Amino acid sequence: MASAMIFPSRRLRATPFTSRVSKLGVSGFTVYNHMLLPTVFESLQEDYKHLKEYVQMWDVSVERQVQLLGKDAHKLACMISARDLTNAQTGRCYYAPICDQSGAIINDPIALRLADDKYWFSIADSDLLLWVQGIALGLDLNVEICEPDVSPLAIQGPMAEDLMVDVFGAEIRNIKFFHFKEFPFNGRMLNIARSGWSKQGGFEIYLNDSQLGPELWDTIWEKGEKYNIRPGCPNLIERIEAGLLSYGNDMNREDSPLEIGLEKYISLDSNVDFIGKKALLKQRKDGIKKRLLGIEIDGSEMPPLSMPEEVFKDGKKIGIVTSAVFSPDYNGNIGFAMIEASNATAGTEVSVDSKAGIRKGKLCEIGDFWSQVQSKN
Amino acid sequence: MASAMIFPSRRLRATPFTSRVSKLGVSGFTVYNHMLLPTVFESLQEDYKHLKEYVQMWDVSVERQVQLLGKDAHKLACMISARDLTNAQTGRCYYAPICDQSGAIINDPIALRLADDKYWFSIADSDLLLWVQGIALGLDLNVEICEPDVSPLAIQGPMAEDLMVDVFGAEIRNIKFFHFKEFPFNGRMLNIARSGWSKQGGFEIYLNDSQLGPELWDTIWEKGEKYNIRPGCPNLIERIEAGLLSYGNDMNREDSPLEIGLEKYISLDSNVDFIGKKALLKQRKDGIKKRLLGIEIDGSEMPPLSMPEEVFKDGKKIGIVTSAVFSPDYNGNIGFAMIEASNATAGTEVSVDSKAGIRKGKLCEIGDFWSQVQSKN
Repeated sequence: MASAMIFPSRRLRATPFTSRVSKLGVSGFTVYNHMLLPTVFESLQEDYKHLKEYVQMWDVSVERQVQLLGKDAHKLACMISARDLTNAQTGRCYYAPICDQSGAIINDPIALRLADDKYWFSIADSDLLLWVQGIALGLDLNVEICEPDVSPLAIQGPMAEDLMVDVFGAEIRNIKFFHFKEFPFNGRMLNIARSGWSKQGGFEIYLNDSQLGPELWDTIWEKGEKYNIRPGCPNLIERIEAGLLSYGNDMNREDSPLEIGLEKYISLDSNVDFIGKKALLKQRKDGIKKRLLGIEIDGSEMPPLSMPEEVFKDGKKIGIVTSAVFSPDYNGNIGFAMIEASNATAGTEVSVDSKAGIRKGKLCEIGDFWSQVQSKN
Repeated sequence: MASAMIFPSRRLRATPFTSRVSKLGVSGFTVYNHMLLPTVFESLQEDYKHLKEYVQMWDVSVERQVQLLGKDAHKLACMISARDLTNAQTGRCYYAPICDQSGAIINDPIALRLADDKYWFSIADSDLLLWVQGIALGLDLNVEICEPDVSPLAIQGPMAEDLMVDVFGAEIRNIKFFHFKEFPFNGRMLNIARSGWSKQGGFEIYLNDSQLGPELWDTIWEKGEKYNIRPGCPNLIERIEAGLLSYGNDMNREDSPLEIGLEKYISLDSNVDFIGKKALLKQRKDGIKKRLLGIEIDGSEMPPLSMPEEVFKDGKKIGIVTSAVFSPDYNGNIGFAMIEASNATAGTEVSVDSKAGIRKGKLCEIGDFWSQVQSKN
């Protein structure tokens, strides 16, 4: 793909914060859940450095909510989630991969339990709404399913907590990781979770009234000036360092949670009978055919991938690179690669057929980047 | 939305033709069904003029297929389609809106019946696959549902037929509108339909092997040179003139087929019991609350919309513009507008709060543009 402009249309939905993001000079967008998601402001590297030092406000409205409400909401949530939600607690967030009958990943949302009979699934890039509604219709369940007017705004970075306290009060400090609480803002109650798609710490504010978007943004921005706040977005460099996987990039419907290394988030040994469990049990027994690993790639700074790049060992194709980028703190190109099981071993020397030519590389575990970056700093 | 670059990633899937489209200088992309769709090559107006005079090749791989195969395929097709497919014939295409239980439009695909037990739904921009799979799972139907490796390539424009004959032989001329037939290409059989998202005439080739993409493109390109072939894409100007509605822009899950003017494509008076029928019968009886019309907007050339623009009558908001563009052949700004029923009358004078300021406008029927453009030429 050559560089090209994104063509505007109503179909690429604007968010409650698009006016602010545009005014602040967003330079790259992507489309996610039929909605605009900023990808770059100043540059990937400048955004990254700032995120690690200060605080950023991210328009992540694209994390749409699939709301389950009613008598069968809990039953349906337990049925679709590969993670056992039987004892899910109100006020908690759960990373909950969703699979089809074959065990392939349809989406990897965060499930929030809002009440005994109410869930939000804060989704990755696929219309999970249609899957859940289709199942509920087929099974004639007693549950209302919709995409409510909820648009998350993430506050991320080492100064996120201090800023959030200035805006919402000291009670913010009592929110534990992957918990959420309600806080008042201009007459409404907003759910705020300690979560977000970075390892720099922070919060996600679930704005539940689009009309309040600019006001919420401006309020936080004003209080954030003393912390050197900037607009930001999920950062490709930081998220690869952090080992955060992206649905559509590092996993899709070709893959199962076992192949992606998500064993600990799926409940194969619990009593819950979720969709895909049978297939995944069989896969666990038979062994997986491919596995996602980290990959270091030699040479100068790589451009972001526009399609998977092939990975070879001794001249034979053994897999593909799914995401890759140059990390300043790691001082090298890092990424993820889906590798056939027989060669999926950390330390394996490979070559990559990249846009920038054939390059040498080495496989590693996904978590290795983060520990190395931490030890270097 | 300010103008911004589209940021590449594997998640925005490349197509079998992306290499060709990029080489030929695509200047704008959008994202559709998680895949790249070209939107502009030279300019909207240059692309438009050329399309109306010569022949263009369009990478419309984003029209993904939802394939239904097996014993219950026909039953399921009839259940999801608001158009009666009970007597659907093999080799025919059917414009078939898909609704949820409330009668809201989920997608507006073309259904192709390939065999008694096999359908393709060639979809608009939503994951219809998940809806259909969810229903089949809930009802425990005996049907395999997948997105096959099928990527349509459209040949559009007044010289499309001559070019297609040069490539595939004279039998091409015998394909009637919205019919399809198999033709050989390099050892494979490809379905070719007389269809496409323009009113300039043409065909859609359902390439069923991604690896053959560049070869198919190059073969047609070479034979097309004598017809002044160019790369193209669904053209915003031509499709508005032609009254072709875009899912996500001119209709979405806020709307029913009755509100969009699709009565003739839905089978409320047939015996088939499709999803949403009950709600639509009630809506027909009670009357619709809003209706999609055409709209002419005064003044100089409007920029393409990035979000709906509000429509007023006597200072009161009565609706929104869903798409709009300047048409050279119409010599004015034309578009579509969703208007509350009490004011949804052709001839109504309105004002539009556009990016370019408040402008006067007038409502018309959607088909009016085409007849006027035809009479002017």
